[in-house]
Amino acid sequence: MQTYRFSIPTELFYGIGALEKLKTEPLPGEKALVVTGGNSIRKHGILDRVLTILAGRSIRTVLFDRVTPNPVRETVMSGAEIAKAERCDFVIGLGGGSAIDAAKAIAMMTTNPGDIWDYVQVGSGGRKAFPVRGLPLVAIPTTAGTGTEGNPVGVLTKTESGEKVGMVCEFPVKSIVDPELTLGIVPSYTAFQGFDALFHSLEGYLSVRSTPVSDVWAIEGIRNIFSYLPAAVQDGRNLEARTAVSFASMLAGMVICISSCTGAHTIEHSLSGKVPSLPHGEGLILISRAFHAFGARRIPERYALIADAIGVAVPGESDERNAARFLDALEELKIACGVDRLRLSDHGFNEADIPGLIESTLIIGGGALVRDRYPIGRDDLAAMLRASL
Amino acid sequence: MQTYRFSIPTELFYGIGALEKLKTEPLPGEKALVVTGGNSIRKHGILDRVLTILAGRSIRTVLFDRVTPNPVRETVMSGAEIAKAERCDFVIGLGGGSAIDAAKAIAMMTTNPGDIWDYVQVGSGGRKAFPVRGLPLVAIPTTAGTGTEGNPVGVLTKTESGEKVGMVCEFPVKSIVDPELTLGIVPSYTAFQGFDALFHSLEGYLSVRSTPVSDVWAIEGIRNIFSYLPAAVQDGRNLEARTAVSFASMLAGMVICISSCTGAHTIEHSLSGKVPSLPHGEGLILISRAFHAFGARRIPERYALIADAIGVAVPGESDERNAARFLDALEELKIACGVDRLRLSDHGFNEADIPGLIESTLIIGGGALVRDRYPIGRDDLAAMLRASL
Repeated sequence: MQTYRFSIPTELFYGIGALEKLKTEPLPGEKALVVTGGNSIRKHGILDRVLTILAGRSIRTVLFDRVTPNPVRETVMSGAEIAKAERCDFVIGLGGGSAIDAAKAIAMMTTNPGDIWDYVQVGSGGRKAFPVRGLPLVAIPTTAGTGTEGNPVGVLTKTESGEKVGMVCEFPVKSIVDPELTLGIVPSYTAFQGFDALFHSLEGYLSVRSTPVSDVWAIEGIRNIFSYLPAAVQDGRNLEARTAVSFASMLAGMVICISSCTGAHTIEHSLSGKVPSLPHGEGLILISRAFHAFGARRIPERYALIADAIGVAVPGESDERNAARFLDALEELKIACGVDRLRLSDHGFNEADIPGLIESTLIIGGGALVRDRYPIGRDDLAAMLRASL
Repeated sequence: MQTYRFSIPTELFYGIGALEKLKTEPLPGEKALVVTGGNSIRKHGILDRVLTILAGRSIRTVLFDRVTPNPVRETVMSGAEIAKAERCDFVIGLGGGSAIDAAKAIAMMTTNPGDIWDYVQVGSGGRKAFPVRGLPLVAIPTTAGTGTEGNPVGVLTKTESGEKVGMVCEFPVKSIVDPELTLGIVPSYTAFQGFDALFHSLEGYLSVRSTPVSDVWAIEGIRNIFSYLPAAVQDGRNLEARTAVSFASMLAGMVICISSCTGAHTIEHSLSGKVPSLPHGEGLILISRAFHAFGARRIPERYALIADAIGVAVPGESDERNAARFLDALEELKIACGVDRLRLSDHGFNEADIPGLIESTLIIGGGALVRDRYPIGRDDLAAMLRASL
C-alpha cells in the first residue's frame, strides 16, 4: 500500500501582469496589515503600487515594514501586536521569503495566545498546536526562490539560540506571483534565490516523501531553472527568463509542501542561523556539491532520472555515470550564474565551527534531515561541511 | 500580459489502499447521504466496505443508491429532498462519474432553493448563481476516467430536452482515489473511461485556456494513459496499470478544471444527451479521429509537442508529420484497447441525425466549444459527425 496526499488550498495567480489581479479579486477582509521589509520594494515602486491599488478599492492598510532578512521572533510578535491594536482582519505579505514568512507567523499570532516560539515543533520550540485559525493571508512575492506563496511554512530565527527553523502556519488564501516584480533583483540575489528554488524541487524529488504529483512539478521546476536561470542572472530585464524562474519557484514551493526538503536545507539553516548575513540560497549553494555528491553515490538511480530530465543523461550508460553527469551539470549551472567560487570560509566559517554546526543541524533537523533516502551521520555532516569550507 | 490561475482546494488522497484513509481522516460532518449507483459497487463489496468503515467511526449514513448513468435532474432533486428530510450534514459520492456528479448537485440543492436547472449556465438553464454553499462533499471514485474528484463540475441531463450539460457546483472537500476500487471494471468500460481521462488531458492541453501548471499535468496524464491503459484493459487485475490510469484520471480531472475541455466534449454531450445508453467515453472515442485530424491540421505545432511527449515524434521532422504520428499513435492505442472499430451507427445514429446533433452541440456548447484554438463551424461539425457514422 502506498497512499499519497495532495492539498494546495491556496488560490494562485501567476504570470506577467498578475499584480493587476489585486485590483479585482475578492480579498479576505477590509483592513490589511501589509508586512514587508520595505527597502527594495520601496525603491522599485512596488510598495506604492500595492498601496495605491488597495486604497483604490477602499481597503484600509497598516504598514509594517520592519521585517529583516532571516526574520526573528521579536518581529513577529511586534507585527501581531500592531495587527491586534489596529483591528486588521487580514494580512498581506509583500516581498521576499522573509517578509512573507514573517507575515504568515504574524497572521497566526494575531489570533492565537502566547509566543510564536510556543508553536515551533523542533529544537527549543514549545511544540503546541495553534488553538485557532490565523488571520487570512495574501502573499505577493517579489523574489523568485522561496516558493512560500504555495505552502504553509515560515522560516523563523530565535536570536538567543541561533535556531533557524521552518514552522507550519497556514497556506495563504491567495497568492499573486508576478515575475515583473522580480525585474529589479541584482544578479547575485537572482542566482541565490533561483538556486533555492532549484534545491526545493531537487530535494522534494530526492526525499522519501516524494509523490507522483510532486515529482511532475519538481522535474518541471528543475528543467526551468537549468534552462532559464543563467539568462535571468545575466540580464535581469529578460522577462521570459524571469517568468520561467518565478514559475519554477512557485512549483517548487508546492513541491516541498507535498513532499519535503531534505538534509541540505537543514544544514543550511544551521549555517545562516549562525551567520544571519548569509543569504539562504547562497548557503545552499555552498554545501550543494558535497551534499549531492554524497547523495549521488547512495541513490544514483534517482539522480540519473534528473540527469535524463535536464537532457544530460546518456542512454545506456550506468546510473552512476548519469548521476555524475547531473553533478557536472550542477557545477556548470553555478559557473553560468557566477556562483561557482563561493566558499563557507568567505563568511568566516572555519574548521572550529564544524562541531557546533553539526549540533545545530541535529537539533533543528527533526523534519528535513530524516527525509533523505539514506542515513546521514555526524561524520558525514562533518565531511560535507569540511569540503565546503 | 498573461496571467494564469491555479486553484484546487480539494484535499486528495490517492494510491493503492487510499480507502483506508476513510478510517482516520477527519470528515466534514456526522451524518452522510451516501450517493451511489449501487449495482457494481454492491457486487464488488465496495459499498459494504465504505458503510462498515463509516459505522465503525459512528458516522450515521443514509443510502441514496438511485443514480443512473448520465444522471438526470429528477434524481438530483430526490436526493436533495432526502438529505434535507434526514438532516444529513455532508454528502459522500461513491462510484463512477455519474454517482459523484449527482452527489455534487445534491450537495448544492440540499442547501439552495429551487430546481437544479435554475443554476445551469447554458441552454435552457436558469443561469442563476447558488445563493449559499452546498453541503460538504467527499468523493470516492470507483472508476478511472472522469476525474470529477478533482474539480467542481457535474454533468447532468434534462430528459425533456435531451440537454446534457456540465455545471459548476463545488469542489469536493476531500477525495479518495484508490485504484484497487477499479479492479473489477470490465475491459470495455476500462477502455471507455481511460479514453475519457486521455481526452480530458488532451483537450486541456489543446484548449485556449491551457496553463503552464495544467500543461505539466496534462502531458503526464497523456503519457500514463498511452503507457498503461492497454495493460489495464487486457488484465483488469494489473494493479500497477490500474494505479497509473487512476493517477492519470485524477490529474486530468484537475487539468480540465484549471484549463478546459474543448469542442470534442461538447459534441459528445450532444451524442449521449440524445442516446443516454451511449457511454460518454465511447462517445468521445467515436468522434476522436475526425475531431483530432481536424485539429492537427490547424495547430500541428501543439500536436507535435504531444507526439514528442509520448515518444513518437521524430526530431527534425515537420510539425505536420509529427502531428500525424500522434494521430497514428491514437489509432494504435484504440487497437490495443479493442475500441478501434466502434462507429456512431452502432448506436443508431445516421445521416438524418446530423442537423439535430449540430444544433444541440451549439446550444450546450457555450463553454467548451469556444475553447478550441480555431473556429469550428456547422460545416465542420457536420463533416466530423459524418466521418464518424
